[in-house]
Amino acid sequence: MTRPVVIRALTRHTADGCAHDQDLVAVEAPVSLIVQPASGPARDLGLLMRTPGDDADLAAGVLATEGVIQRAADILAIDIDIPAGEDTPDSESLIRVRVGPEADVEAVSDRVGTATSACGLCGRLSMRRIDRFCAAVTSAAVRVEADVIRSIPVRLRDNQHAFAQTGGLHAAATFTPTGTLLDLREDVGRHNAVDKIAGALLRRDALPAHDLVLAVSGRIAYEIVQKAAMCGLPMIVAVGAPTDLAVDAARTCGITLVGFARDGRFNVYTHGNRIFSQQDR
Amino acid sequence: MTRPVVIRALTRHTADGCAHDQDLVAVEAPVSLIVQPASGPARDLGLLMRTPGDDADLAAGVLATEGVIQRAADILAIDIDIPAGEDTPDSESLIRVRVGPEADVEAVSDRVGTATSACGLCGRLSMRRIDRFCAAVTSAAVRVEADVIRSIPVRLRDNQHAFAQTGGLHAAATFTPTGTLLDLREDVGRHNAVDKIAGALLRRDALPAHDLVLAVSGRIAYEIVQKAAMCGLPMIVAVGAPTDLAVDAARTCGITLVGFARDGRFNVYTHGNRIFSQQDR
Repeated sequence: MTRPVVIRALTRHTADGCAHDQDLVAVEAPVSLIVQPASGPARDLGLLMRTPGDDADLAAGVLATEGVIQRAADILAIDIDIPAGEDTPDSESLIRVRVGPEADVEAVSDRVGTATSACGLCGRLSMRRIDRFCAAVTSAAVRVEADVIRSIPVRLRDNQHAFAQTGGLHAAATFTPTGTLLDLREDVGRHNAVDKIAGALLRRDALPAHDLVLAVSGRIAYEIVQKAAMCGLPMIVAVGAPTDLAVDAARTCGITLVGFARDGRFNVYTHGNRIFSQQDR
Repeated sequence: MTRPVVIRALTRHTADGCAHDQDLVAVEAPVSLIVQPASGPARDLGLLMRTPGDDADLAAGVLATEGVIQRAADILAIDIDIPAGEDTPDSESLIRVRVGPEADVEAVSDRVGTATSACGLCGRLSMRRIDRFCAAVTSAAVRVEADVIRSIPVRLRDNQHAFAQTGGLHAAATFTPTGTLLDLREDVGRHNAVDKIAGALLRRDALPAHDLVLAVSGRIAYEIVQKAAMCGLPMIVAVGAPTDLAVDAARTCGITLVGFARDGRFNVYTHGNRIFSQQDR
């Protein structure tokens, strides 16, 4: 499984109504990165959430930019073990890099406890943890009108500060099902913006938030869905594209996932039953 | 220091020439997150790279989305210790959350070795490490014509796959100073795309790459500059906005940082002496 994109079903909502369709989404899949020095124990650098493809380059590049290796000769072998059809949160995909005696394996230990990629969390662990919250989210009875979803990206943007609108900061926000903006938080890190929303909800004892919509200004990777599930949020409306793993996690967790919400259009990837139009009444 | 944006000097290049100016950039600053349970030792969740502001929400939100706490009463106190003027990579900013007996502090331990935010690496450790490479990057004598820089975003996009152009995948690429595309790699994670480029360079023993330009399709946070410095790359051309910490790190490392490269324009934030126009000859 080294495809960078896969096909997912979706419902396209435009000014003319909605239609079932399918489209390509980017693949996001976890892989463990292990460094095996010439002597001494192997070091586990943890899970990377990445798009499959160029995995040898990715492994070599992480070790280079972490200061472990500096030349091609420092790599004795790169063993890539990706079980067929197994790029799921429960897969055991693994890249093992055997490095020579000049590699500085100690540089890796500086990394423990800090972030290792632009994405996120160990898929395996967190998928188990969010399972605890799935039943609650799935049963959330909230319904949102299509016109409200169309309005959310506009009001998300209008309520960001002028600078943020230039693209320097991500925004996350909560809306009521009728489209009232409750909280908006900004950060250079999209995941941080969502964590700030989660914290605002928790601090006023509004968790689980079964009756609110989470809006985000960017794309939707797996970890955003995980964070929404932990908050009990039944719907995510994103301006950007979702990854395949985000779609799959949203389906599992009972979350309505809306992507590409912009210019009066949006795509619904999962649990579209929570979205209705005036003519449905 | 809780400002989300700060002013940085830059040089704007447009079709009409270039001019010195200044503009707001998003702040990116590290903060340590510590959880202090009712009994037992404190847990260090590592450094978060975040935009200052709503730090209590961020801390509470991380603990909520990690499954450590579930209600406001689980938080006994949030102590925020941010030294004035110290939001730099060497700062000691710290958020300590004291949690009650119902908090599941063990949930934190699942996290060690996995990523904690959409950004990156411990600023302190890595800033020291990249210092080793600064002198080499600073002395890189590469010069690039303004028209070549204008062409890079176009060719970066033209060489992404059709799907990637829709916004689902980030791209990173290397170009020669005369504008020849060498390598292009894609990933849902912008940092992974750069790591794939670093690995491609290392595997053909092209590190340090003092004569190449790194192009990236998205924004530039600190960790991208750190990765470029580790590769000896003297110039970064980004389609998106840089953070303040990215600008500061590029200045320190001797890297020419170009942002907002699109539609025939670009902004130069650091070391503009490597960029020339035909009329300069």
